[in-house]
Amino acid sequence: MNATPATPLLDTVSTPKDLRQLKPGQMRQLADELREEMISAVGQTGGHLGSGLGVVELTVAIHYVFNTPDDRLVWDVGHQAYPHKILTGRRDRIRTLRQGGGLSGFTKRSESEYDPFGAAHSSTSISAALGFAVANKLKGEPGRGIAVIGDGAMSAGMAYEAMNNAREAGNRLVVILNDNDMSIAPPVGGLSAYLARLVSSQPFLNMRQLARKISRRLPDALHRAAKKTDEFARGMAMGGTLFEELGFYYVGPVDGHNLDQLIPVLENVRDAAEGPCLIHVVTQKGKGYAPAENAADKYHGVQKFNVVTGEQAKSPAGPPSYTSVFAKALIAEAEQDDRVCAITAAMPSGTGLDKFAAAFPERSFDVGIAEQHAVTFAAGLAAQGMRPFCAIYSTFLQRAFDQVVHDVAIQNLPVRFAIDRAGLVGADGATHAGSFDITYLATLPNMVVMAAADEAELVHMTHTATQYDAGPIAFRYPRGNGTGVALPETPELLEIGKGRIVREGSKVAILSLGTRLGEALKAADTLDAKGLSATVADLRFAKPLDSDLIRKLMLSHDVVVTVEEGSIGGLGSHVLTMASDEGLTDAGLKIRTMRLPDLFQDQDKPEAQYDEAGLNAPQIVDTVLKALRHNSAGVEEARA
Amino acid sequence: MNATPATPLLDTVSTPKDLRQLKPGQMRQLADELREEMISAVGQTGGHLGSGLGVVELTVAIHYVFNTPDDRLVWDVGHQAYPHKILTGRRDRIRTLRQGGGLSGFTKRSESEYDPFGAAHSSTSISAALGFAVANKLKGEPGRGIAVIGDGAMSAGMAYEAMNNAREAGNRLVVILNDNDMSIAPPVGGLSAYLARLVSSQPFLNMRQLARKISRRLPDALHRAAKKTDEFARGMAMGGTLFEELGFYYVGPVDGHNLDQLIPVLENVRDAAEGPCLIHVVTQKGKGYAPAENAADKYHGVQKFNVVTGEQAKSPAGPPSYTSVFAKALIAEAEQDDRVCAITAAMPSGTGLDKFAAAFPERSFDVGIAEQHAVTFAAGLAAQGMRPFCAIYSTFLQRAFDQVVHDVAIQNLPVRFAIDRAGLVGADGATHAGSFDITYLATLPNMVVMAAADEAELVHMTHTATQYDAGPIAFRYPRGNGTGVALPETPELLEIGKGRIVREGSKVAILSLGTRLGEALKAADTLDAKGLSATVADLRFAKPLDSDLIRKLMLSHDVVVTVEEGSIGGLGSHVLTMASDEGLTDAGLKIRTMRLPDLFQDQDKPEAQYDEAGLNAPQIVDTVLKALRHNSAGVEEARA
Repeated sequence: MNATPATPLLDTVSTPKDLRQLKPGQMRQLADELREEMISAVGQTGGHLGSGLGVVELTVAIHYVFNTPDDRLVWDVGHQAYPHKILTGRRDRIRTLRQGGGLSGFTKRSESEYDPFGAAHSSTSISAALGFAVANKLKGEPGRGIAVIGDGAMSAGMAYEAMNNAREAGNRLVVILNDNDMSIAPPVGGLSAYLARLVSSQPFLNMRQLARKISRRLPDALHRAAKKTDEFARGMAMGGTLFEELGFYYVGPVDGHNLDQLIPVLENVRDAAEGPCLIHVVTQKGKGYAPAENAADKYHGVQKFNVVTGEQAKSPAGPPSYTSVFAKALIAEAEQDDRVCAITAAMPSGTGLDKFAAAFPERSFDVGIAEQHAVTFAAGLAAQGMRPFCAIYSTFLQRAFDQVVHDVAIQNLPVRFAIDRAGLVGADGATHAGSFDITYLATLPNMVVMAAADEAELVHMTHTATQYDAGPIAFRYPRGNGTGVALPETPELLEIGKGRIVREGSKVAILSLGTRLGEALKAADTLDAKGLSATVADLRFAKPLDSDLIRKLMLSHDVVVTVEEGSIGGLGSHVLTMASDEGLTDAGLKIRTMRLPDLFQDQDKPEAQYDEAGLNAPQIVDTVLKALRHNSAGVEEARA
Repeated sequence: MNATPATPLLDTVSTPKDLRQLKPGQMRQLADELREEMISAVGQTGGHLGSGLGVVELTVAIHYVFNTPDDRLVWDVGHQAYPHKILTGRRDRIRTLRQGGGLSGFTKRSESEYDPFGAAHSSTSISAALGFAVANKLKGEPGRGIAVIGDGAMSAGMAYEAMNNAREAGNRLVVILNDNDMSIAPPVGGLSAYLARLVSSQPFLNMRQLARKISRRLPDALHRAAKKTDEFARGMAMGGTLFEELGFYYVGPVDGHNLDQLIPVLENVRDAAEGPCLIHVVTQKGKGYAPAENAADKYHGVQKFNVVTGEQAKSPAGPPSYTSVFAKALIAEAEQDDRVCAITAAMPSGTGLDKFAAAFPERSFDVGIAEQHAVTFAAGLAAQGMRPFCAIYSTFLQRAFDQVVHDVAIQNLPVRFAIDRAGLVGADGATHAGSFDITYLATLPNMVVMAAADEAELVHMTHTATQYDAGPIAFRYPRGNGTGVALPETPELLEIGKGRIVREGSKVAILSLGTRLGEALKAADTLDAKGLSATVADLRFAKPLDSDLIRKLMLSHDVVVTVEEGSIGGLGSHVLTMASDEGLTDAGLKIRTMRLPDLFQDQDKPEAQYDEAGLNAPQIVDTVLKALRHNSAGVEEARA
């Protein structure tokens, strides 16, 4: 077991109000204790470690200088907010992080007034902070909007859109750029190169420079003259930073682990800024914990670990992950076909494209946190005859929905969407669940939508997508490990819009799409044992539907149940629509659609989440039995 | 009638290959004739005029200098591409612009090999051009990607995401920034201010500066030395432009109407660029046509007009537009309630928020082409107690889908979405149709989705949305004029999730959502005349559904038909799901869902589009009659 660290000063601080009673000289000790406590907690729970370690001093300094929660502090993404949670009344629950019923791994409004805006997807913080700042301005109330955003998150378009509007907030907006040259993977692109130049070209601000740079505590007339000259110089010479050109006062770079610099800089901005400020803080991901500092990924996300050695608990060995099966399958396709290329939006290891990139560096593109660009870039590649795969998590593909519609589907371009993390995702909770992709993709003309029932199917679908040039095609697969089926030596070319019968029966037909197939088969066994002979079909395609197969099953079984790991509007809706279009409900059709419930499910163990969603075998059985018991008498009664 | 202009030189040019046979000295005359021809054509058809007039010289110069279509030219948005269409083999059809069966008002792949990438939504061009450039690089084929993008379009995040990735393309990427200080409305934000400073701080490039700036035709050693110095200077001084900081070679500003400057600049970039280039071209929207130059909107979009006077044909007087009814209703709400505020993404007049801004400048926000920021900014406002209305067209809200999910719905924040241009939109065609919003919004937990059947309903819904603080709420309404119903003096507070019976009958129930209510009522009259007494309900809400009302109608009528102006996954799917959840199909339910077809409909007159979609009264009648004729025998037969 890991020992609990001694934290005498931290023990006196349960909220930022306590913290602000301390002296500046005590902040160093507080930060050290906070770091120990965080390492200890994450050692027990697993979770995001490196990001939080990097912002320990920043967290202490912000709460010390600014008047939280009235000053609205928005952590971008939020997985660096564990130290913030410890300081804002949640220390007693910090060892429940990411567990069912425990603290969220991100910021969350329902947890604390110190979390005014939840996050998890990247790059939303400046927009939200602007909203807080402007609302307070309109209401004539005090309170700034403070966004803490990483350099990686700055590559996303929405951060830029927000910066472009910063002046709306006047000096109520403070953006703290947490530059650790690292988001989950090393950042890419022009902005990243620019930030590196900015940091390497000048030393950290010292106090005199700082005073010169933003002090406005001058007599009024002098002040106005200085300001005018300053504006003139900035306007004419074009010599400011990129951020100044967008309308910010730029302050930095500042050493983000040096509290003697950090606190005065923040105080100066707090007291003297005349417009929106961007403070460029340089930190080190994993700071202060040797195993994290030395790891390539800076312990971004970790299992439980031994605090002394840094050794992480091993995940139980099991079948390969869907992600790795996809990566291998795509590499095999690319070996056969020069046109295959792959695009990730800052998730090379999460999508398995790191392996693809190692094999085919020329044909691999990490575009940064930039899903919109990723999709339209892929559309351009497709229009010029390449066979691009966009590998993006279901939840992040939402960022590029318009590009999927406007640039891909309307033009019917053969972009392949490899949609990882489709369905429920366990500890990451509602913000990362891939609940909507079947619905938002299958509603689009020209789109083909597949879901893999197991990892062998994923290999077939990767192959089928490669070969399909008639238009866009998407295939979804879940987080985590496969089912353990044997992987095919040679992938099959699936017929577009055709499902398969996995199990033959006569009374009950279960139409499964994707990963609930195993549960459907279990349910079928149970039903058989009750004398209800069950057919199970794996539809493979949500669009186009295998209407021949579905019609046949509807007409030959007493009850039909669809099962999918997605929200309303997806497979079930398409099957029902087909049935009513064809008049198959006219004379009676016992059909039920099982889908994700109409609520955002909190984090929990995957099994518990499926249970809450009602998508496990017992619930399939129950749905069938209820439908069969629900005889026409009930309905006739209601009709009377 | 407008006279057809004499265009002797233009008559000899049917494709860019002809154009490239001419001498540079002839380009001025060609541009003049092209401008005359374009004015004449748009005078006859109406359409986008100002943007095309501004890029006549640029169009000529690009096709003269670059090797189109092998160099892939992508016009951002595409409504400035009429001169391009005239020069690329489509002059004979230019007077069919935006008409059914005619040329699209935007670029379109199916029209011409000179349109390698279609557009209509803003800010996609750099990503697409990058795709072309990289594909050719990978294939070892010649051909650049050339994007022409306006300064307004540069405010969108995806343009920035693409710029951040520009170096992928090396010198195969050319971005031409068409800076006319005007998109549809004057641009806003920090970038716009920056561009204005850039233009005002230095004169247009002359030839000597140009040579100094990008010539690389130096002896190799000298060249390398110069390059190194240059990079050092750029890297250390941080004195480059914003574009240079992102990795471009910046060239400009250049006078976009001076062919003697424009052609050499483009030639120089073509022959000598060593990396991605951004050419900053300054143009005047409406250039060369006095009525356009003098108009505030530079004749952005026009009706047919008299070429001599510039006088536009008047639209027939009629009921007020939905847009103006919304604007008036929102102003009335804001007069009662300080918390009401409004956000538009660069469409102040299109959404009616120009009127709101005139009445409440402090509470009105035009964020530029930045839908993602607009939504999350609104979420921040809502989290701080304001009552924000995001007024965004249905098709453009797709750009912010993830923000709607992640920042609004998951956090259950009361952002109000006023969704204009929902459904089919006539001359703007598939790219602007608002087909998917019911589906992509109603699938989200916490979301309330309404659709207005007429302009009086729109007033009620604006009021209802204002008062609703329990979570997000959206209401959709169509392009164009209202139905002419009387507007209420006092708006009604609608009960959430409750529809209304508009017409009582007994055999047929038509469940309408939104604007097809008029056709549903017409259909009901026809059915009545055939002895089929028809009930018509206006459901008002796609979510939550009025399941009590729907169940009652299902149990008491012989056939039920849903009608909506949206794609599969929307109202019809939700009604079918409710019916199967409750077992209402078990003993037989004749139900049909009428919706938009599974294809992207081209531009046409709205009536023709509704006819193609099958959403007019005769088709409703037909659907009912077919359902009734489709007796159980047919189904029984199939079951046998």
